[in-house]
This record gives sequence, structure tokens and C-alpha cells, in this order.
Amino acid sequence: MPEQLTLYSAKVCPYAHRVEIALKESGLSYDRFEIDLKAKPEWYAPRVNPASKVPAISYGGPKVAPDQPSAESQKLAESLVLLEFIADLTGLETLLPKDPLLRAKARFFIETFSSKAIPAWYASANRGESPEKFLEGIQAIQALLPAEGYAIGEWSIADAAVTPFLARAELAFKNDLGAFDEGDGKRVYETLQTDPMFERFRKYFVAVKGRKSFQETFDPEHILNQYRERYPPLRAQRLASVNRT
Amino acid sequence: MPEQLTLYSAKVCPYAHRVEIALKESGLSYDRFEIDLKAKPEWYAPRVNPASKVPAISYGGPKVAPDQPSAESQKLAESLVLLEFIADLTGLETLLPKDPLLRAKARFFIETFSSKAIPAWYASANRGESPEKFLEGIQAIQALLPAEGYAIGEWSIADAAVTPFLARAELAFKNDLGAFDEGDGKRVYETLQTDPMFERFRKYFVAVKGRKSFQETFDPEHILNQYRERYPPLRAQRLASVNRT
Repeated sequence: MPEQLTLYSAKVCPYAHRVEIALKESGLSYDRFEIDLKAKPEWYAPRVNPASKVPAISYGGPKVAPDQPSAESQKLAESLVLLEFIADLTGLETLLPKDPLLRAKARFFIETFSSKAIPAWYASANRGESPEKFLEGIQAIQALLPAEGYAIGEWSIADAAVTPFLARAELAFKNDLGAFDEGDGKRVYETLQTDPMFERFRKYFVAVKGRKSFQETFDPEHILNQYRERYPPLRAQRLASVNRT
Repeated sequence: MPEQLTLYSAKVCPYAHRVEIALKESGLSYDRFEIDLKAKPEWYAPRVNPASKVPAISYGGPKVAPDQPSAESQKLAESLVLLEFIADLTGLETLLPKDPLLRAKARFFIETFSSKAIPAWYASANRGESPEKFLEGIQAIQALLPAEGYAIGEWSIADAAVTPFLARAELAFKNDLGAFDEGDGKRVYETLQTDPMFERFRKYFVAVKGRKSFQETFDPEHILNQYRERYPPLRAQRLASVNRT
């Protein structure tokens, strides 16, 4: 009998979304528990993840209600650790191929996105830096894409790792939601939509967004509602502090 | 016949050292080429690693001189990608066990060290922040250690990932080499040597430093010479800028 597996997630969180996509693709049966990041249950940090972040997984031990986690299950955290864990658990080549070179390419793709695109996205969304830097991250992963298909050809956890961020950045830029200057987000959105330089990326982005595992786990309205609360005050604060100096 | 494998490394670099330890443990035969980071060969970025960093690996293709890399070999980079690549290539459980939970623990150990200890080390060495923060990183990995043995019990790439940094930090702190205030390094060194709080860590550190793969690849005199050039000017610059304000 397969071990129990519970994912602690939050719809808004791109790191958690990575793992949810991989779990959908894995065919494993699992429970999912939504953590309200603005009002985390008091049992979450002491009994599931001391870092108090999502995603986290409880694995093994008795079948229990997700809000009553057993001390006997293993608790695992960190999204990239969990992506590899799910791939290891299933042994499915559809999550990560067996070929060492392809595995290295998948991990290098993730590393490139993590070091070049994610920091640029947060710097623009939260601190108001120009979102143009995010385009450099997109160029960096575009340069790694094969002529056709996903990050390493066939779909893999490399695609699970980047799609949640790409989809959230698109949503935020398109709706001009971020601490950046008014209009900057829409300009980057337009560039990604129309600039011939990003043609290969666009094809890739359409493909990963078309994946059933993504569509079943992405809730743009929920995310937009949270972004509409989060970002206008951050922009206002930044503009106020710019005006003060 | 095994594929050709060439490691481009630099004795001073802890990231490169990770890969060198794993290669020693793997039993794979490989060539090693020292890159002088202060005078990189002009062919290195265009023909081996566009990011112009070490470590990098060329894999496969014809057997060639390391300074004449073939266009037919695969070029791989990023130390953690390379550790996993070597583990995948050999399939040896002595590098990374097959059990998905142990693999997740190895990766979580690396992630904890990477997010909590490495930034603190660079912040103190290069920017003069207090090295006390590094001790918090050490506490974080100590908390993950099993009662006996290495990071996940048996030696694994998790140990290869942290040992090069631990050894360099010890060398720098002991010799008071860093941009931090005079004496701060020695104080942290003493704490790590004697504070009962770090007893489990000390046992671990002795074990990883005792590993043959480490001893054969660690050149403390070479590193000390580079640190004696690098850090005194950084400390002087910082003190000068503090005095100016």
C-alpha cells in the first residue's frame, strides 16, 4: 500500500505550486491542505515545518487528518527538494529522465531560472525595481530551450519549477500589480507578448500553461485578489519614500 | 569505454572543491585543469563555461587536451548540478543512496547550508559583517545531523557540498583573514573549537576533514596565500569607508 502523503500548500505561493504540479503529474494519491499564509494554524510550524513556510510534505505514518499531523510521519520541506523527492518516489521518467545528462540539464535550467529570473521578479514586485531585469532572466532560460518542446524536450520537473513563477509574473505585469512604477508592468507584458526576440519563449510558455497539471492547480482569480491587496500599498509606500528624499 | 570527463577547477574555490571531492569518491577517471581565476584563459568562457566560473565539466566527445576543449563534448556547470550528475553517472549509493527519503534529507541539508551558512560566510569575509551569523548557519546544520556519522548517516554528496566551505571558513577565521573587525574571526574560531554547544558539529567536522577525498584535494597553504592577498585590503577599505562617514 502506498504511504500517506499530504501536501501543505497555498494557492498564492509559486514555490508550493511547483510541488502541486509535480504531484498531479506523478499520479500519486495525496491529500492537500491549504495554509492561510496570513493566518497560519498554530500547529503548522511546530508539527509540520519549523520554517513555517509552504510547501511542506508529510510522508508515511498513519493516515490522519491533515490538521492533526502525526509525529510518526516524515516532514519534508523546500520546493526543489520536494520536486526531486516526488521524481525519486515514483521513478517515473515523465518527471525526470534517467539519463544523467538530461537530469543535469533539467537542474541547470532550474538553477538558471532561480538565480536570474526569480530575484528579478521579487525585486520588481516587492521593491519596485524595473521589471526589465526579469526579461533578462527570460532570455537566459530561452537560450537553454531546445528547438522544440519543454525545458529538456519532454516535460519534466524543470517545467514544474518555472511555470508557477512565469504565470504569476504574467498576471501581475498584465494587471500592473507590483511596487514598480505604473505602466512598467504592462510594458514588460507587451514585450513578452509581441517582441520577436521572445518568440521561442512564447511557444514554451503556451506549452507549459496548456499542461493539465498546471490548469488544475492554478487559480488566477484567487491570486489576483491577493495581489490587489498586496501590491498597491507597496507601490504607494515606495513612492512616498521616494518623494520624501 | 567510459566517456572522457574533464573538471575545470580552482584550488581556492569552495564550489569547485565540492565537485573534486565527489569525483574522488566516485572512482571515475577524469582530467583536472586548474583555472587561474585572476587570469582566466581566453578560451574558457567561449568554449567551456559562458558564465566564466568554476567548476565546469566537459563530458564525452573525443579525448583532447583540457586547454583545447572539443565542441563535441557536453559542457556542464553549477556545483550542485555537478554533484548530482556525478552521483547519477556512477549510480553509486556511496554518493547518494537510492532511498527517496534519504535523498531528500541530503538535499535539504545542502539547502540549509546554502541559505544559512554560505551567505553569512561571504558577508563576513567580503563585507565585514560579524561572523557570528555564520555560527547560526552551523547551528542549523548541526540540528539536522543524526546522532552518529555524516549528514545523512553514510557519507554522501551532502558532505561534499559543505566541507569545502567549512574548511575555508576555519582557515580564514583562525588566521583572522576577512573584512571583519580584527579579532572577530579568531573569536568565532574559538567558539567553534570549544563551546559545548557545538560538540556534535565538531565531531562531524573532524569526520569530514578526515575523509581521504578531502585531504587529497585540499591545499591550505595555497588558499592561505590567496586569502593573505585578498582580505587585508578588503578590511582596510572597509575601515577607511567607516572612518570617512
